[in-house]
Amino acid sequence: MKSVVVFSGGLDSTVLLAKLIAEGRTCLALTVDYGQRHRREIESAKAICAALGGITHRVADLGALAPLWGRNSLTDATVDVAEGHYTEERMRSSVVPGRNLLLLATAAAWAFAERCDSLAYGAHGGDHAIYPDCREAFADATARAIALADWHTLALERPFVMLDKTAIVRMGAALRAPMHLSWSCYKGGAEHCGRCGTCIERREAFANAGVEDPTRYAPDAPDAGTLAKNGWKP
Amino acid sequence: MKSVVVFSGGLDSTVLLAKLIAEGRTCLALTVDYGQRHRREIESAKAICAALGGITHRVADLGALAPLWGRNSLTDATVDVAEGHYTEERMRSSVVPGRNLLLLATAAAWAFAERCDSLAYGAHGGDHAIYPDCREAFADATARAIALADWHTLALERPFVMLDKTAIVRMGAALRAPMHLSWSCYKGGAEHCGRCGTCIERREAFANAGVEDPTRYAPDAPDAGTLAKNGWKP
Repeated sequence: MKSVVVFSGGLDSTVLLAKLIAEGRTCLALTVDYGQRHRREIESAKAICAALGGITHRVADLGALAPLWGRNSLTDATVDVAEGHYTEERMRSSVVPGRNLLLLATAAAWAFAERCDSLAYGAHGGDHAIYPDCREAFADATARAIALADWHTLALERPFVMLDKTAIVRMGAALRAPMHLSWSCYKGGAEHCGRCGTCIERREAFANAGVEDPTRYAPDAPDAGTLAKNGWKP
Repeated sequence: MKSVVVFSGGLDSTVLLAKLIAEGRTCLALTVDYGQRHRREIESAKAICAALGGITHRVADLGALAPLWGRNSLTDATVDVAEGHYTEERMRSSVVPGRNLLLLATAAAWAFAERCDSLAYGAHGGDHAIYPDCREAFADATARAIALADWHTLALERPFVMLDKTAIVRMGAALRAPMHLSWSCYKGGAEHCGRCGTCIERREAFANAGVEDPTRYAPDAPDAGTLAKNGWKP
């Protein structure tokens, strides 16, 4: 079985890639450069593919589309990245409208050309209501559009749709996935800031999974024990 | 009403743009550069937007994705463009798998950012079974994916879905659409070759519509009268 995996270099897609490889799949990993501020994740993606070995990895450059997008904290350096636990208000600024549709359409084009059986991505049960394109109904409609976009049948797989991030970390630990190489922080510094929404989620997932967090956080990041005591509010 | 129009600079989307403007819409025209060999259509798109006046026009560069696509005659100069009337066999080489999904996803991203009411494209009844992503079922599924991709509701419009190219030419003539500036030829020369699949379709549509064809064809192009007599086979 041959699959294109939408691979950001983040925690979820790293575990997804490790899982599919462990199942004996031929995986083609696609990282999309959409002008994101946290470009560090692209370097992480390369390192993870090298660590997993034998994976064809491509970085698709969609940076030329950035002018089409509105102001948001992921692609526009003049918008602040929200700190603290995800809340609708805090994270609204990180929505890139229509991003997932574009990521999936790009991955589908490659998967069609490579005659893959499936296209897999790491949408999971923990994804937030603030991201409309993480909804199950969106994925169902997109799966149907992809299935009809070519004569060659291509399935859209979401193996983590019933899992939360804690379960994904547990799976990653069991698979010995190179989670230490993955990148989550939206701030895109040299180290994880340890206090933005994605960093807090990452830290919480490792803590709840009972798996040692291999991430190196910035020296001024709040301590995990303190965060846990405060209900993961920095 | 505000709409993004997928605008190739071809005949169908030129008439579509003219129609929506005549209806009083605010139109944002999006031309996608996907590394097509017939890049001449991008220049046509610019000229048409200037002729129609007051249209915001953007060219989205997806050329960086060309390596993801397989061999096809539209983006790969080493593959010959088929001549003659469309047949499944002849035109199979012009299929860019997943192209329409990518075009629509790109246009949707801009439409979301601009808070448009709709996204319109010129899929029509004459589009061929060889292009799976011209099917009505594909468009329906994509419409649903787009509707669910953001909290902001965005409709996918296909005003020409019940029309054939002859009807589109008639509408264009009635609207005085600048069809003379539009570009169809897949060969991408300085003039329309007059003999590739899209040229033949264009010529046939003008002839059947009883509208004078304003296109300048290459000097060695077969004569329209002869083509018509031969059932549009060059």
